[in-house]
Amino acid sequence: MLAQIITIGDEILIGQIQDTNSTWLAKELTSLGFAVSSILSISDNEESIKKAVEDSMRYNQLVLLTGGLGPTNDDITKNTLCSLFNTELEFNNIVFDDVELFLSHRGGKMNSLNRDQALFPKSAKLLRNRQGTAPGIWFEYKGSVVISIPGVPREMKGIFKQEIVKGVKSFFDLPENYFQTAMITGLAEAQLALIINDWEKQLSKDIKIAYLPSPGVIRLRLGMIGSNKEVMEKKIGDEIVKLYKLIPDNIYSDTEVALQQVIAELLVSENMTLSTAESCTGGNIAKMVTSVPGSSVFFKGSVVAYSNQIKKSLLNVPDKIIDMYGAVSREVVESMAIGACGKLNTDYSISTSGIAGPTGGTEEKPVGTVWIAVSGPNGTISKKYIFGKERDINIKQSSIAALNMLRVVLMDE
Amino acid sequence: MLAQIITIGDEILIGQIQDTNSTWLAKELTSLGFAVSSILSISDNEESIKKAVEDSMRYNQLVLLTGGLGPTNDDITKNTLCSLFNTELEFNNIVFDDVELFLSHRGGKMNSLNRDQALFPKSAKLLRNRQGTAPGIWFEYKGSVVISIPGVPREMKGIFKQEIVKGVKSFFDLPENYFQTAMITGLAEAQLALIINDWEKQLSKDIKIAYLPSPGVIRLRLGMIGSNKEVMEKKIGDEIVKLYKLIPDNIYSDTEVALQQVIAELLVSENMTLSTAESCTGGNIAKMVTSVPGSSVFFKGSVVAYSNQIKKSLLNVPDKIIDMYGAVSREVVESMAIGACGKLNTDYSISTSGIAGPTGGTEEKPVGTVWIAVSGPNGTISKKYIFGKERDINIKQSSIAALNMLRVVLMDE
Repeated sequence: MLAQIITIGDEILIGQIQDTNSTWLAKELTSLGFAVSSILSISDNEESIKKAVEDSMRYNQLVLLTGGLGPTNDDITKNTLCSLFNTELEFNNIVFDDVELFLSHRGGKMNSLNRDQALFPKSAKLLRNRQGTAPGIWFEYKGSVVISIPGVPREMKGIFKQEIVKGVKSFFDLPENYFQTAMITGLAEAQLALIINDWEKQLSKDIKIAYLPSPGVIRLRLGMIGSNKEVMEKKIGDEIVKLYKLIPDNIYSDTEVALQQVIAELLVSENMTLSTAESCTGGNIAKMVTSVPGSSVFFKGSVVAYSNQIKKSLLNVPDKIIDMYGAVSREVVESMAIGACGKLNTDYSISTSGIAGPTGGTEEKPVGTVWIAVSGPNGTISKKYIFGKERDINIKQSSIAALNMLRVVLMDE
Repeated sequence: MLAQIITIGDEILIGQIQDTNSTWLAKELTSLGFAVSSILSISDNEESIKKAVEDSMRYNQLVLLTGGLGPTNDDITKNTLCSLFNTELEFNNIVFDDVELFLSHRGGKMNSLNRDQALFPKSAKLLRNRQGTAPGIWFEYKGSVVISIPGVPREMKGIFKQEIVKGVKSFFDLPENYFQTAMITGLAEAQLALIINDWEKQLSKDIKIAYLPSPGVIRLRLGMIGSNKEVMEKKIGDEIVKLYKLIPDNIYSDTEVALQQVIAELLVSENMTLSTAESCTGGNIAKMVTSVPGSSVFFKGSVVAYSNQIKKSLLNVPDKIIDMYGAVSREVVESMAIGACGKLNTDYSISTSGIAGPTGGTEEKPVGTVWIAVSGPNGTISKKYIFGKERDINIKQSSIAALNMLRVVLMDE
């Protein structure tokens, strides 16, 4: 069953706002069993709306429009749809009462703009709006369903959940979809593709996979369309088990969670505490860890030691080690991690020291060189990484590599 | 000049990722003088790509495709475009060298998937990619320009800025656009609208303004379309001068820079140093400050004191102050800032202590309560803020409020 999402509004076309509605709707429609064939953002004028809806009905069973239904002048969707479907507006008592009730709850009164919102297309089915004043509209025309709802996210979501879900479920005969995502770190896209090449080849034809890369993490998504959810869940689950065996140090989850969330759960379950000692990551690891609600249970704090002076005074890194090996070295980064465990009184500590760039590189230690250490009850380990030339990406990749190093240590212990 | 943006990738159609590329590109194309007629997201298959490009060329002078160019199997854009434009792939030495150079910088080696990326359409113009391995492709066909670039945001932006801007400027006869943005902090959108209401009313009709809010910062963009850049620059510049007089403590720049960049310049010009002592912001302020290249000149480090123990041991906050007033209080946050200046040996320090949420609030100190202090050569100031209920937004808003407090102090001294 094909569906298209159409967003109406010039503010999207000039890049002023991010179209988050479409993402939300795409996810909901997919989980209902639709295949979203495309997402289109168009201008708020009659010609664009008419052309888009006519085109869309040729290919899709469901056309879902958002936006262009508010009380102000720039909204012309309702009239355009009436002309397209050869119908006209008439006063609708239910809408009028809904609008009046909604405004009265907020201490507001009806003005002429709100009153016009009670004009509703004769041949359409009403989708009531409990979160605002513009009702949703359901047309059936030449075998397609065309739905128009307001673009305010809260109203859009409300009408979708309260009205559209049951409407499309009873109108269409929908298949089941199933997706699962493996969260993978420590490998570039091309590296990963080579390692899992044979696994990919042996996959059943009805399993589709997609690589979704971001700095430091690749989400590998497996998806199926079918009729039996349990069968699909089992089939995809079995493939993910094989994947775990291929790259055990690289998969950190088989659900869409952040790496710091996984670490939080591991530490809390072991009743262990964490600190960080950060040079090149500049506090980013602490920031990531403290983004997890409740992190104060296991996270005690961090020393961001941007200057060597602070590495010495707050992390007890000996003068002579810095002089002998330089700040970006195995010796210093290990000493930082050990110092943080002691000074911040934690079971584990992660430390980083590197050259984030764009300047500060040398022939021996180019921009992107980063030493990372993890110290814990069973000792201290460290590793050198070479990332790229871009400061912000180097910081992100270093942070994720450091958290994954800790995860592997926690899993082994 | 009409342009359409087409994003290729199933991950958008199932709602798994937000299409931020289109928003960025829409803004860039608009400021170059294009009218973006629509934004379309389609599936990663030959038929969809072919149909979309053919349709688009009928209405648009520029068709800009992103995505579907990576090294893995799910990318078929390049082959589809070759078949559409009756050309074929041939080995391209420049691309090969670029890919090899890019990989060698990262300590990686070329594999067969990367080698295939050097296969480039014969009739197309090369858009070199300095941030990744997939080159951009520029086709000219029947009066339209069709450009295909990778979907990884960093690569997409790099190719756009380094190759496409000059390409379209010389190919198309574009009108001049002029935009300037006032960066405003410390005011909610509705508050700002009220304060600048009279200023907005007296604006010349040909100046369009747009509010672009994000947590902690509103970008107020003034724009004109015309033929004479100097005239537009003067007219908009004069209005921004008036705006500075209206809200002097809230505008931190009249160009699109981050607040931490402004602070970096102020500190460097005064030859002053900075540290942070962070509780509820968890290292986010240090992370923001160290995102500025060269920040090690003025930024010495940070103590993220998530536990009270660390507030005492590393920031010298006296036991009895925490016991008497609680960690979220004027007394503690001022003591943290003073302690950081001393322990980290800096001229200035920023400190935060608050309840980021979702739990930990009380009737007296609800979630969103944050104390912020700035300590410097002329003493210590502090202020209480009440933000919202969402943890990540509270952390962002606290960080920006803290940096702006420091900015106002630096401007006054």
